[in-house]
Amino acid sequence: MKGKISPIEFSNNKLILIDQRKLFETEEYFVCDSIESVYFAIKDMVVRGAPAIGVAAGYGMYIKALSLNIPDINDFRLEMKKAGEYLNSARPTAVNLSYAIKRMISVVNEEWLDIRMLKNTLYKQAIAIHNEDIHANKMIGENMLSLLGDSKSVLTVCNAGILATTAYGTATSVMYLAKEQGKELSVYACETRPRLQGARLTSYELSRNGIDVTVITDGMVAHLMSKKMVDAVITGCDRVASNGDTANKIGTKNISIIAKRYGIPMYIACPISTIDMDIKDGSEIIIEERDPSEVTHIRGVQIIPSGVKVFNPSFDVTDHEDITAIVTEKGIAYPPYDVTLKILYA
Amino acid sequence: MKGKISPIEFSNNKLILIDQRKLFETEEYFVCDSIESVYFAIKDMVVRGAPAIGVAAGYGMYIKALSLNIPDINDFRLEMKKAGEYLNSARPTAVNLSYAIKRMISVVNEEWLDIRMLKNTLYKQAIAIHNEDIHANKMIGENMLSLLGDSKSVLTVCNAGILATTAYGTATSVMYLAKEQGKELSVYACETRPRLQGARLTSYELSRNGIDVTVITDGMVAHLMSKKMVDAVITGCDRVASNGDTANKIGTKNISIIAKRYGIPMYIACPISTIDMDIKDGSEIIIEERDPSEVTHIRGVQIIPSGVKVFNPSFDVTDHEDITAIVTEKGIAYPPYDVTLKILYA
Repeated sequence: MKGKISPIEFSNNKLILIDQRKLFETEEYFVCDSIESVYFAIKDMVVRGAPAIGVAAGYGMYIKALSLNIPDINDFRLEMKKAGEYLNSARPTAVNLSYAIKRMISVVNEEWLDIRMLKNTLYKQAIAIHNEDIHANKMIGENMLSLLGDSKSVLTVCNAGILATTAYGTATSVMYLAKEQGKELSVYACETRPRLQGARLTSYELSRNGIDVTVITDGMVAHLMSKKMVDAVITGCDRVASNGDTANKIGTKNISIIAKRYGIPMYIACPISTIDMDIKDGSEIIIEERDPSEVTHIRGVQIIPSGVKVFNPSFDVTDHEDITAIVTEKGIAYPPYDVTLKILYA
Repeated sequence: MKGKISPIEFSNNKLILIDQRKLFETEEYFVCDSIESVYFAIKDMVVRGAPAIGVAAGYGMYIKALSLNIPDINDFRLEMKKAGEYLNSARPTAVNLSYAIKRMISVVNEEWLDIRMLKNTLYKQAIAIHNEDIHANKMIGENMLSLLGDSKSVLTVCNAGILATTAYGTATSVMYLAKEQGKELSVYACETRPRLQGARLTSYELSRNGIDVTVITDGMVAHLMSKKMVDAVITGCDRVASNGDTANKIGTKNISIIAKRYGIPMYIACPISTIDMDIKDGSEIIIEERDPSEVTHIRGVQIIPSGVKVFNPSFDVTDHEDITAIVTEKGIAYPPYDVTLKILYA
């Protein structure tokens, strides 16, 4: 199986997801044949990572369309609109989810004489979203590589890898590319509590692809940086505001502030679809609070006495002033982001 | 049992320790009747926390003395010296361990006509180290309270509580004192990976004493601070260099840098015995690296694929420039610490 992780496939009108709740211990697949099962897969993090959620949502909307046996186009549109709102409520922070749903809905809202043809175009749209993700990630990696110079060691958080996308990953793309080109690049992966995506997923996909990876706990960042063990930070993200403020997995903001202190560049890797030009800054990003049990229990084991309160914001917002560059498939944005993101997005 | 945690007792020539490896699930006691068992208890973190380690070491040296049936005082001294070196090697970072051993050895090195009287004085010295800890912690709490002003919410890391000392705790002393005085003070406890002392121990002792505590993961610090949810940081420490650089549990350095960014005061709580005037700065502090299994496994459950590298420095060194004040039983030191610590220590 080495190197052949295929986190998202669509086959026989079913969405087949590698079940990321069970990695690394078990490679099990989760099959979605209804929009409800896609909703569950996104909400419960069977599939996770902003780009992957977007791709899954595209297929989910297509699966919904297939299931509808409604001859009237207006009734059909109404059902699809409701389905889109339902699916979009699965997770609030990543913009890719609503981006993909909007694209599917825009197809539905075109003029159609034949609903079969509409459904066929929805299929093509879902495939297009998927293919664009693969292409975008590859380009993000190439653009990122141009920034790294002689960097020997990078630090990342959560999993913005193949498992969070459909291929290459966003943050990991440059790591795979460097490996292909014979460049020496080692990776520190923050374990990323509470869900341990760094410990479980990033370490899993990098190590099985032969990339030198070391897992650290989230508290070790300043120690490593003060010892000059990290040349650059590369993370993915879930939503970028038009001023460059960036929502990503909780813990990213810690890293950005510490990196700034030590003069270590902080690079955000994301497709253009993650940039939300409709919001002015990070204060408008809804931060998802997830179930307390993610903090109180680790892989089923209770680590906090019963009855003790916990707090579980799933994301934080890194200040645009702490970001050195935002690297997309269309190019690299540098501060001032309110200007440069507009240019990239156009 | 509410409020009556007694982490260290000495009775019938045995050292009785609450087994902190098993908290919070089980309140089990670990009995040491030899220096080897005290060594094991310190090394394996049955007992932990710089001040508690010091107190345990005092009793450990006394237990060793009791076991020696050597009439010649010089032979006796030699054995005790060896025992001290052995015990001191159990954990390298906390200075309280070597401090307590030095005090016991200084008794041994006095002039003695009667070894029975020497042993009796060793007993008194061990008790004195223990009592001084209780007194020091109470005073640290009172001094800390004078700094907190209207603070409503403090953040701490690891466990510098009753369980890390013998009563009151260092960082927690002010929390218990505020409670006694009817002051409203809520606490955020960082879970403190890898050993989860915050999640398991701080939450346990604070909640059972009726103090409002919320556990967060270590990655949430910047999010909380940016939302103005934290008024001050209070941590214990394992060693303070003469310039104020402070070794404490890994993750403390992250917090100090983020607190500085947000203008939140960073207070270190420690007895004078934790200050090591013999070292110039933090670069001279040996950082203990502990077993990789602490990172790869949580409470017995594997969270990282087998074969993936991990890094496990147990402590980090907070820069003196990021510390607002160092609060001891003898008073409060402010920058410049190379001057003020000398005055306090004298």
